[in-house]
Amino acid sequence: MSTTLQSDFSALVQGVNMIWVLTVTFLIFFMHAGFAMLEAGQVRSKNVANQLTKNLLTWSVGVVIYFLVGAAISTITGGLTGGGSYSVAGAFTSLYMPEAGAAGAWVSWLFGAVFAMTAATIVSGAVAGRAKLRAYVGYTILLAAVIYPVVVGFTWAGGFLSGLGFHDFAGGVIVHAMGGIAGLTAAWIIGPRMDRFNDDGSANVIPGHSLTFAVLGTLILAFGWYGFNVGTSASPLALNDSGGVVLGSFATVGRVALVTTLGMAAGAIGAAAVALYKTGKVDTLYVANGVLAGLVGITSIADAIVWPGALAVGLLAGAQLPIVFEFVEKRLNIDDVCAVFPVHGSAGVLGALAYPFVATGFWNGSASFVGLLIPQVVGVVVIALWTFAATALVFGAFRAAGQARVSREHELEGLDTSEHGVDTYPEFGSPDESGARVDGGQIRPDGGVADASHAPASGVETDSVSETEDNL
Amino acid sequence: MSTTLQSDFSALVQGVNMIWVLTVTFLIFFMHAGFAMLEAGQVRSKNVANQLTKNLLTWSVGVVIYFLVGAAISTITGGLTGGGSYSVAGAFTSLYMPEAGAAGAWVSWLFGAVFAMTAATIVSGAVAGRAKLRAYVGYTILLAAVIYPVVVGFTWAGGFLSGLGFHDFAGGVIVHAMGGIAGLTAAWIIGPRMDRFNDDGSANVIPGHSLTFAVLGTLILAFGWYGFNVGTSASPLALNDSGGVVLGSFATVGRVALVTTLGMAAGAIGAAAVALYKTGKVDTLYVANGVLAGLVGITSIADAIVWPGALAVGLLAGAQLPIVFEFVEKRLNIDDVCAVFPVHGSAGVLGALAYPFVATGFWNGSASFVGLLIPQVVGVVVIALWTFAATALVFGAFRAAGQARVSREHELEGLDTSEHGVDTYPEFGSPDESGARVDGGQIRPDGGVADASHAPASGVETDSVSETEDNL
Amino acid sequence: MSTTLQSDFSALVQGVNMIWVLTVTFLIFFMHAGFAMLEAGQVRSKNVANQLTKNLLTWSVGVVIYFLVGAAISTITGGLTGGGSYSVAGAFTSLYMPEAGAAGAWVSWLFGAVFAMTAATIVSGAVAGRAKLRAYVGYTILLAAVIYPVVVGFTWAGGFLSGLGFHDFAGGVIVHAMGGIAGLTAAWIIGPRMDRFNDDGSANVIPGHSLTFAVLGTLILAFGWYGFNVGTSASPLALNDSGGVVLGSFATVGRVALVTTLGMAAGAIGAAAVALYKTGKVDTLYVANGVLAGLVGITSIADAIVWPGALAVGLLAGAQLPIVFEFVEKRLNIDDVCAVFPVHGSAGVLGALAYPFVATGFWNGSASFVGLLIPQVVGVVVIALWTFAATALVFGAFRAAGQARVSREHELEGLDTSEHGVDTYPEFGSPDESGARVDGGQIRPDGGVADASHAPASGVETDSVSETEDNL
Repeated sequence: MSTTLQSDFSALVQGVNMIWVLTVTFLIFFMHAGFAMLEAGQVRSKNVANQLTKNLLTWSVGVVIYFLVGAAISTITGGLTGGGSYSVAGAFTSLYMPEAGAAGAWVSWLFGAVFAMTAATIVSGAVAGRAKLRAYVGYTILLAAVIYPVVVGFTWAGGFLSGLGFHDFAGGVIVHAMGGIAGLTAAWIIGPRMDRFNDDGSANVIPGHSLTFAVLGTLILAFGWYGFNVGTSASPLALNDSGGVVLGSFATVGRVALVTTLGMAAGAIGAAAVALYKTGKVDTLYVANGVLAGLVGITSIADAIVWPGALAVGLLAGAQLPIVFEFVEKRLNIDDVCAVFPVHGSAGVLGALAYPFVATGFWNGSASFVGLLIPQVVGVVVIALWTFAATALVFGAFRAAGQARVSREHELEGLDTSEHGVDTYPEFGSPDESGARVDGGQIRPDGGVADASHAPASGVETDSVSETEDNL
Repeated sequence: MSTTLQSDFSALVQGVNMIWVLTVTFLIFFMHAGFAMLEAGQVRSKNVANQLTKNLLTWSVGVVIYFLVGAAISTITGGLTGGGSYSVAGAFTSLYMPEAGAAGAWVSWLFGAVFAMTAATIVSGAVAGRAKLRAYVGYTILLAAVIYPVVVGFTWAGGFLSGLGFHDFAGGVIVHAMGGIAGLTAAWIIGPRMDRFNDDGSANVIPGHSLTFAVLGTLILAFGWYGFNVGTSASPLALNDSGGVVLGSFATVGRVALVTTLGMAAGAIGAAAVALYKTGKVDTLYVANGVLAGLVGITSIADAIVWPGALAVGLLAGAQLPIVFEFVEKRLNIDDVCAVFPVHGSAGVLGALAYPFVATGFWNGSASFVGLLIPQVVGVVVIALWTFAATALVFGAFRAAGQARVSREHELEGLDTSEHGVDTYPEFGSPDESGARVDGGQIRPDGGVADASHAPASGVETDSVSETEDNL
Repeated sequence: MSTTLQSDFSALVQGVNMIWVLTVTFLIFFMHAGFAMLEAGQVRSKNVANQLTKNLLTWSVGVVIYFLVGAAISTITGGLTGGGSYSVAGAFTSLYMPEAGAAGAWVSWLFGAVFAMTAATIVSGAVAGRAKLRAYVGYTILLAAVIYPVVVGFTWAGGFLSGLGFHDFAGGVIVHAMGGIAGLTAAWIIGPRMDRFNDDGSANVIPGHSLTFAVLGTLILAFGWYGFNVGTSASPLALNDSGGVVLGSFATVGRVALVTTLGMAAGAIGAAAVALYKTGKVDTLYVANGVLAGLVGITSIADAIVWPGALAVGLLAGAQLPIVFEFVEKRLNIDDVCAVFPVHGSAGVLGALAYPFVATGFWNGSASFVGLLIPQVVGVVVIALWTFAATALVFGAFRAAGQARVSREHELEGLDTSEHGVDTYPEFGSPDESGARVDGGQIRPDGGVADASHAPASGVETDSVSETEDNL
C-alpha cells in the first residue's frame, strides 16, 4: 500500500476513533448528574445540598488532581509492578507536555479521568448525612492522586494483575467494586447517622426525601453506562499490519451492547422479585438500584460472555441487593446510606467471580474454568484489600484527629445549614426538627422578605459567619 | 478497485455507521428518563413511585421479552404478510446465535429495541393512578412479544403495508400512534380514576404534582427525539456497486434535522396559541406537550417533506392537542391521565395523513397526491385497528378477571403505598387524604426515627407484609 | 490520486464530520434542559412555571425566527462589515432552497441555531419573577432575528472583528457574554422584584425554591458544554490539497477537551474558595455557578491556550463570581435573579481579555502580547455596546408602553398564576402569600376533587378566562 494511502487511512481511523471516545467520555461524565440525583434523592432534605456540593467538588477537585498527579501514578504503578520499562519523569511529561501532533494524549487522559471520578463519587453516597466536608474532600484528593491510580496501575496500566490475566473489561471491579468497598469502609469508620441504629442493634429506616430524583438519577446513570460499557470498546477501527483498515474493538461491540442491556434489565427483575418475595410489594428503590446492580455486575465481563450468562449475572446481581443491604444494615450495623456496597461493591465482585461460569471462552472450550477463575479471585482480593486498607487509613486518620464527622448539633440541624449555610427547599417541608432553620433572610409569611443585606448570598440564604467553626 | 481497498472501505463504513447507530440508540434509550419525568410530573404525589416503577419495569421486562421473542415475531410477520421467504427458526437463531463476524446483528437489534420500548412506555401514562401493576406488566409483556412486533412486521420488516407504499420514516404511526391508541384503549377499558368524572358526566381536573418534572421530561424527550428522528438515518455512509464510498442515508439528514426542529417548535407555538385563545393564558403543560405533539406529527414524514410543510404539520399537531384532549375528556369521558392520545395518537395520525400535502414528491411533481394518500390511510387504519383490538382483548381479559385495576381503598390511599409500600416524598406535602400514610419507620416530629427494624427496607419505609394482598 | 478515490474520501470525511456535528448539536440543544432546571431552581415556587414556559418558548419561537430571518442576517452582516462579496437574496435562498446534494447546509444551520438559542435563553434568568411574557417573547424574536445575528456577522460570519483578529473560539463572548450583558441590561430596565431592595438600598435575599433542580441544571449544562466547546472543533477530518485525508480541527481537540475540563473544575474551586473565605461556608449555589463561570471563561479561548492558563482563567472566573454578584446587587442595585451577568457576562469578558496572558502563541513566542490583546479589547467593547444598546432600546420601548413587567398584584400572586393559570406544585408548599391560589379545580382536603368541568385544562388547574387581562 502506498505511503499516502496509509496516511489517509491513519487519519481516518484516528478521527473516527476520537469521535467515539469523546462521545462516550461525555456520556460517562454525565453520570455525575446521575449520581448527584440518585444520592440527593436518597438523603433527607436537610442534607441534600451537602450531597450535591460533594458531588460537584468530587469532580472539580478530583479531576485536577487526577491530571496533575493521578494519571502519572497509574503509569508508574503499572510499570513498577508489571515489570515493564517506565520513566517516572516521562509519566508526568507525557501529560504535561505531550509531543506535538499527539492529538490524542489529552483525549485519552480525559477518557481515563471520567472513570476515575466515577469511582470517587460512589464514596459520597455511603457517608452521607454526617461526614465532614473537609474529610470527604481530603479523601477524594487522595483517591484521585493515589488510591484509584494504584488500582489502575495493577490492571489496565499493565501491572501484575493484568499479567496474571485478571479480566475487568470496563471497570466492574476497578471502578465500581473499588468505590463500593471504599464507601463501606468509610461508612464503617465514621459510624452511622445518630438515629440509624438503636441500642439493641436494631435498625431504623431513614427514608430519602425524593424517589423521583432517585429514579431520575438511576436513568441518567443507565444512559451514561452505555458510554461506560459500550464505550470501553474504545477503538472502533484499527489499522492492520499493512496499514489497511479493519474493525478494531467494534468487532465485539454488539456483544457488549446486548449483554449490558440484558444485564441491567435482569438486575431490575432480580431485585424486584426478591423484594416482592420478602415484602409482597415491588419496592421502587430496589428496582432502581437493581438496574444499577445489574449494570455493575456485567461491567467487568461484558465483552466476553454468552448472553444467557448476562441474564444470569444480572438476575443474581439484582437479587443479592436486598439481601446484602440487610446484611450490612442488620449484621454489620454499618450505615451505608445510598446502598453503595450492595450496588457497586458486592455486585461488582459477583460479576467478576462469575466470569468463568459465563465466559465465551469457557463455553466454546477455548479456556479452562480454573484458568479463568484464579486471576479473578486474586484480582478481587488484591483490589479489595488495597482499597480497604488505604481507605481505612485515611478515614482513620481523620477520625483520630476528630475531623471525620460533624458535631451532633450539626448533624441534627442538617449538613446543608451547618456546612453550606443553605436551605435546599426554603418553601417546602415541615420546619427542621432542631428549630435550626436559618432565620436571616427568611421569607416571611406575609410575603415580605426579611433584611439580609449583610448576607454574602448568591440568591440563597446563608448563616452569619460567626456561627461557623470549621466547615472545610 | 482492489479487493483490499474494498475491504478497507467496508470496515470504515461499518465502523462509522455503527458509531452513529450506537450514539442515537443511547439517545433514544434516554427517552425513558424523559417519559418517567413527564409522567411522574403529571400524576399526584401519591402515585409517583408507581409511575416510576412502571417505567423501570417497562424497559427491564420489555427488553428481555423483545430479545427472546418480539424481534423474531417481527421478522416472521414481515415474511408472512410480505410474501417474502423467511424461516421461523432462522428468525430466532439469527438473534440467539448470529454468525461470527456479524458484529452488527446485536447492535441492530438494540436499535430496534429502543423503538419498541418507546411504544410500550407510552401506555403507562394513560392508565396512571389506578391500573394494577400486574395488569400493566402483563400487557407490557404481550406488547413486547407480539402487539408491537406485528406492527413492525407489517411495515419496516417488509410486510404488506410496506409493499403498499405506507410511509412511516421513524415511527410516527408505528411507534407513537400505536402507543397512543393503545393507551387510550387501555384507559377506556379500565375506566377513569374515581373522582375524575361526576355523575352528570362533567370532568374534574386532577392536577399533576410537579410541572418542573413534567417540563424536564419534555426536554429530555426532545433531546432523545433527535436520536429518534435524525438517527433513523441509520446508515450515514454506504458502499456503491463498485465498493466505493458514498453518502447513504446522510444524503437527506439535513432535511430530517431541519424539519424535526421546525416541527417541534411549531407544535409548541400551535398549542400555546390555542390555549391562549381559549383561556387567555399560556398553559405551561400545553406548551410542553405541544413540543411533543409537534415531534410526533413530524416523525413519520421527516425525510421527505418540504420545510414549510413541517411548520404547518407542527402547528396543526400542536393546535389539535387542547381540542382532542377536551374531546377525549368531555365527550368520551376517558381518563387519559398524561394526554398520551392527543400527544402520541392523534398527532401521529395527523402527520401520517398530512403526508401527501407536504411531501417533496408531491411538490416537485414526482408523485401523485392520491398515490401518496391511499397507503397512508390504509396503514393508519390497519395499525389502529390491530392496536385497538389487541389492547382491548388483553385489558378486557384482565378486567374480566378483576385484575385490571386496584381496589377503591388502594386508589384512595395511592398506588405508591398499596403497590410499592413507599412514600415518594416522606417529608413534603399534606398528609395523605385517607390517613393511609405508612407509619412504621416514620420520622417523628422530634427528629428521632421510629423503630423499623423489621422492615425489609432499602432506605425507604415499607408496609408490613401482612397488609399486602396481591400487588403484582 | 484517482478521481474515484477522491470521491470516496470526500464522502467519508463528509459523513464522519456530519456525525460529529450532529452529535454535538444534540448535546448543545440539551443545554435548554439545563438552563430550564438551573433557572427554575433559582426562582420562587410561584414563578417556576413561568420560567419553564419562557424556556420552552425561547427555543420554539426563537429557532423558527432564526431559520426564517436570523441566519441570513448573520451572513449579510458578515459580508457587509467584512468587505467580502455577498448577496442579500442568496443569504436567504441558500437556506430556504439549498442546492440538491448540499446535504450539509441545514445541518450547519442547526449547529448555528443551538448556539443562537443559548444566547437567547440566558436572558430569561435575569428578568425572572416580573417580566411580562409578551415582553420577553418579543425580545426573544428580535434577539433571534437581529441582535445575536449581528454579533455573529461581526465575527464568525466574516465581519470586521474577525478581520481584526478577534479570537472567540466557541462563543465565550459572542454567545455567553452577549447573553449575560443582555440579561443585565434587561434586568436594569425593568427594575427589581418588588421586595428585592429596601428603601435604603440594602438588598434582601429571595432564595430559589430548589437547589436540587439548580444543581441538576448545572450538571446538564456542563454535559452539553462539552458539545459546545469540544464540538466547536466541528470538522474532525479534512481533505488536503491532493484530496487525501488529514485531521482537521481534531488536530487540537485534545487541548480543547483538557482545558474545558480544567477550566470548569477550577471555576468551582475558585468560587468555593471565595465563598469560604467570605462566609466560612461552601455555598452550594456558588460552587454550581462556579462550574459554569469556569466554563464560560474558557469558552472563547479553549483552542489556543496553555493548560496552566486554563486553571488560572477558571480560578479567576469562579472567584469573580461572588464579588461581581455582590457588586451588581449592592452597588448597582440590579436584580439579576439567576446571576447571569457574573456567570455569563463578566466571566466571558474575563476569559476573552485573559487570552494574551495564556495563549499558546504568546508562550511559544509566535504572537505578541499586544497583538493578541487589542483585537480582544475591541471585540469585547463592540459586542458589549451593541448588545447593551439594542437590548436597552427594546426593553425601554416595552417599558415606555407599560408592557415590560406585570402588575404588582400579579407579581405578588406569582407569574405562574397570572401569566399561565397554573400552580407548579399544587400539593406542596405553604399557601401563596397573597391568598391568590387558584381555587377552581383544587384538590379538597378530603381527597375529593372540586368541579372544574369548565376549566379548559390540560391536567392542570387554570384560572377562569375572565381574570385575564393581557398576559401575552
